[in-house]
Amino acid sequence: RIMRPDDANVAGNVHGGTILKMIEEAGAIISTRHCNSQAGEPCVAALARVERTDFLSPVCIGEVANVSAEITYTSRHSVEVQVNVMSENILTGAKKVTNKATLWYVPLSLKNVNKVVEVPPIQYARKEQEDEGKKRYEEQKLDRLETKQRNGDLIFPVINPEPHTVGYSQSSLIHLVGPSDCTLLGFVHGGVTMKLMDEVAGIVAARHCKTNIVTASVDAINFHEKIKKGSVITISGRMTFTSNKSMEIEVFVDADPFVDEPRERYRAVSAFFTYVSLSKEGKPLPVPQLLTETEEEKRRFEEGKGRYLQTKAKRQAQLQQAAQ
Amino acid sequence: RIMRPDDANVAGNVHGGTILKMIEEAGAIISTRHCNSQAGEPCVAALARVERTDFLSPVCIGEVANVSAEITYTSRHSVEVQVNVMSENILTGAKKVTNKATLWYVPLSLKNVNKVVEVPPIQYARKEQEDEGKKRYEEQKLDRLETKQRNGDLIFPVINPEPHTVGYSQSSLIHLVGPSDCTLLGFVHGGVTMKLMDEVAGIVAARHCKTNIVTASVDAINFHEKIKKGSVITISGRMTFTSNKSMEIEVFVDADPFVDEPRERYRAVSAFFTYVSLSKEGKPLPVPQLLTETEEEKRRFEEGKGRYLQTKAKRQAQLQQAAQ
Amino acid sequence: RIMRPDDANVAGNVHGGTILKMIEEAGAIISTRHCNSQAGEPCVAALARVERTDFLSPVCIGEVANVSAEITYTSRHSVEVQVNVMSENILTGAKKVTNKATLWYVPLSLKNVNKVVEVPPIQYARKEQEDEGKKRYEEQKLDRLETKQRNGDLIFPVINPEPHTVGYSQSSLIHLVGPSDCTLLGFVHGGVTMKLMDEVAGIVAARHCKTNIVTASVDAINFHEKIKKGSVITISGRMTFTSNKSMEIEVFVDADPFVDEPRERYRAVSAFFTYVSLSKEGKPLPVPQLLTETEEEKRRFEEGKGRYLQTKAKRQAQLQQAAQ
Repeated sequence: RIMRPDDANVAGNVHGGTILKMIEEAGAIISTRHCNSQAGEPCVAALARVERTDFLSPVCIGEVANVSAEITYTSRHSVEVQVNVMSENILTGAKKVTNKATLWYVPLSLKNVNKVVEVPPIQYARKEQEDEGKKRYEEQKLDRLETKQRNGDLIFPVINPEPHTVGYSQSSLIHLVGPSDCTLLGFVHGGVTMKLMDEVAGIVAARHCKTNIVTASVDAINFHEKIKKGSVITISGRMTFTSNKSMEIEVFVDADPFVDEPRERYRAVSAFFTYVSLSKEGKPLPVPQLLTETEEEKRRFEEGKGRYLQTKAKRQAQLQQAAQ
Repeated sequence: RIMRPDDANVAGNVHGGTILKMIEEAGAIISTRHCNSQAGEPCVAALARVERTDFLSPVCIGEVANVSAEITYTSRHSVEVQVNVMSENILTGAKKVTNKATLWYVPLSLKNVNKVVEVPPIQYARKEQEDEGKKRYEEQKLDRLETKQRNGDLIFPVINPEPHTVGYSQSSLIHLVGPSDCTLLGFVHGGVTMKLMDEVAGIVAARHCKTNIVTASVDAINFHEKIKKGSVITISGRMTFTSNKSMEIEVFVDADPFVDEPRERYRAVSAFFTYVSLSKEGKPLPVPQLLTETEEEKRRFEEGKGRYLQTKAKRQAQLQQAAQ
Repeated sequence: RIMRPDDANVAGNVHGGTILKMIEEAGAIISTRHCNSQAGEPCVAALARVERTDFLSPVCIGEVANVSAEITYTSRHSVEVQVNVMSENILTGAKKVTNKATLWYVPLSLKNVNKVVEVPPIQYARKEQEDEGKKRYEEQKLDRLETKQRNGDLIFPVINPEPHTVGYSQSSLIHLVGPSDCTLLGFVHGGVTMKLMDEVAGIVAARHCKTNIVTASVDAINFHEKIKKGSVITISGRMTFTSNKSMEIEVFVDADPFVDEPRERYRAVSAFFTYVSLSKEGKPLPVPQLLTETEEEKRRFEEGKGRYLQTKAKRQAQLQQAAQ
């Protein structure tokens, strides 16, 4: 679809969150269709996880985003979908790959939302495809267990914070979950949640560096808990790490069932977003260093540095591999 | 894309206007892309006309609408696009043709919005295709001239109208044109206008028959005048004709440039919408007869009857042809 | 326009904020049109103040809201607009007055947003109308000066608050101002701000009483400061007072110019919203009493009680007058 002014920031770059939302919608359609392709219990595919996603080039207002999706692996109870986004300038005809994303969906029964139904197996062109898919499946399963344990953290506000400290840029946003945010099962679309997460992360990044910023990448996101229609969700973001030219922001989503529900507030999702700051000509700008104050902040900064160096090493290994 | 609760009426049927808007967006993308496919002046395709469109089957919330578009004819300054919409129930896999529409676009220069640029010719598989396209081109050109003359009519409110009279159901809606309603040239997307027209026509129809109603068809719509960002548009609808099971509603769009413009209010578009009333099981219901009071209303009723009979005859001829 | 699922809360009642937004749009259109009706500098009317507004009856999904606006007074630099909202059930034909609102607009030059242009005078049917309008004008002018002084307050978060305390229900919401939120001048529509304020107030009210709630009234709101496109606005709400069946919530709007602006965060608007809690049958429910802890909270509770008793006395005086 054509990118509109409302999809973009003041510099005309389309929000990463808008693109994540389109990706997730495409993934939800293809996996729901697949899971209902054989006689069996009607079901709706719910997003369980998005793998790390890089935004390779910014999309601008007026460009057309082309989204294509393909099922690349199925386990007994989950579907892996690969989604590619191309942006196309329909005036010049120029096309660019914007990003490639991998998503995992789990089919939930339409009659009983707590029941996961079986996924019809797909046919693989080659045996290795199945093996590689199985490997990815095992890896993400492990990773999901790990993040589940790290999810107790809260963000507390700071009074009169100094510029460039963590407290200075941290932000939260409240959203009341409406009908258009939800699937047929009455739970929030993963894409809606990701769009809100990107919005908060973008506000944190812009507050820190006071310039035009764009999403560079999103780390793997696990959706542990469903969020029901009518809930209030609080999306909070804080900066964890800065390199010379990038910022890492941790985002939490907490849900409050809020009406007619005995349940307490719970952590539904958390993720790391990386942002870069761009000049008017689209060149990366230096980013002010994050000032850490508490022991916790210093620890998180070091962990962020670890993730940053790991990603950098991985990318260089890929470049070398490609050059060979 | 997946149809959401906000796309539908209280009975869960997606508004015809939502579908018209998707159709127009697809048409605008393909024709803008085509008109910029050769080195030349960058341009944006503006909707000039939509041919009569029938809604063959209602679309429901949760279904996926698949829109495909193809260029079927080019004249020197215009592009004919054929758009097909299929609705797909991703749970059952059932697919239905929702409608087929034909749209005409005119490429306007990005630098000078009053300049129409030249359209690169397309290749035809067979010579007859070109001839048939040319015939359609000439026909619509003639028809556009005719409607241009009929455009002086106004709708005046009636105090304490009787049920089932024209004054009883007539309605208007005012909309302030925002940035997301507009193309790169700063003019309203034709699809946005059609969606608002369908909304008003739907209110008129529901006021008349007090039941659940759906769009059955839209007569050819000509877009004589562009509408600029910041304008206020008034969309007015009145019932012109009822058969046993259908209602015809005439809709006018008047634009008010309103700030910074010396121009008076002007008629931008007008069209006829046909609605049917459906029971909860989706069966057509009888419609109360429209009570005409003035000479004007009786004349419009007769004209509507003429259009109704003509369409009916045409459809029967097609059915007979198909049966042979 | 027809009320959609997204306009309403889980019980199907349309948010007061949606209605306030429609009212403000109607007021902005009629006053901008009036101020441009004579040859002179093109201008856009900006909302300066909304008088106290009562919501007389809830509106439901599927109903049509009819908004009508009329200019009732003009001073040299401001316009008073009276807006009436009727909700209509188009299936039964039943109509109800939803609310009546009075708004004040100031015309700002399109070329220089800091210049207030002159308002063409309107004609009054009777001399008293002008005198009464002048009296209203003087009263609101005085009131605007007063609120300007009261605007220094901040909301600080509380860790682990007890149920029914002020800290327990207080909430804030962040919004990034996009193009569709803004007028032609690039400043936020007053109606957009009011909608967000109502959203926060509704979340505070629902957190306090854990039931379905609706807006009962909004006190006079003064718009002291414009908010520019690209700003981040923080809307915070806290409960100030509860009677047996109503809750008063104070809402602040703070703007953060945020990119490319030397300006500090500033208080743009503040207002009091009153909510009631409704049972599924639409009957008012008792509200848990607000537990005040600090001296400040006790003082605000007493002030809220004063406003509550004053409004109650006023309403009874009106009823007695009407009965005579």
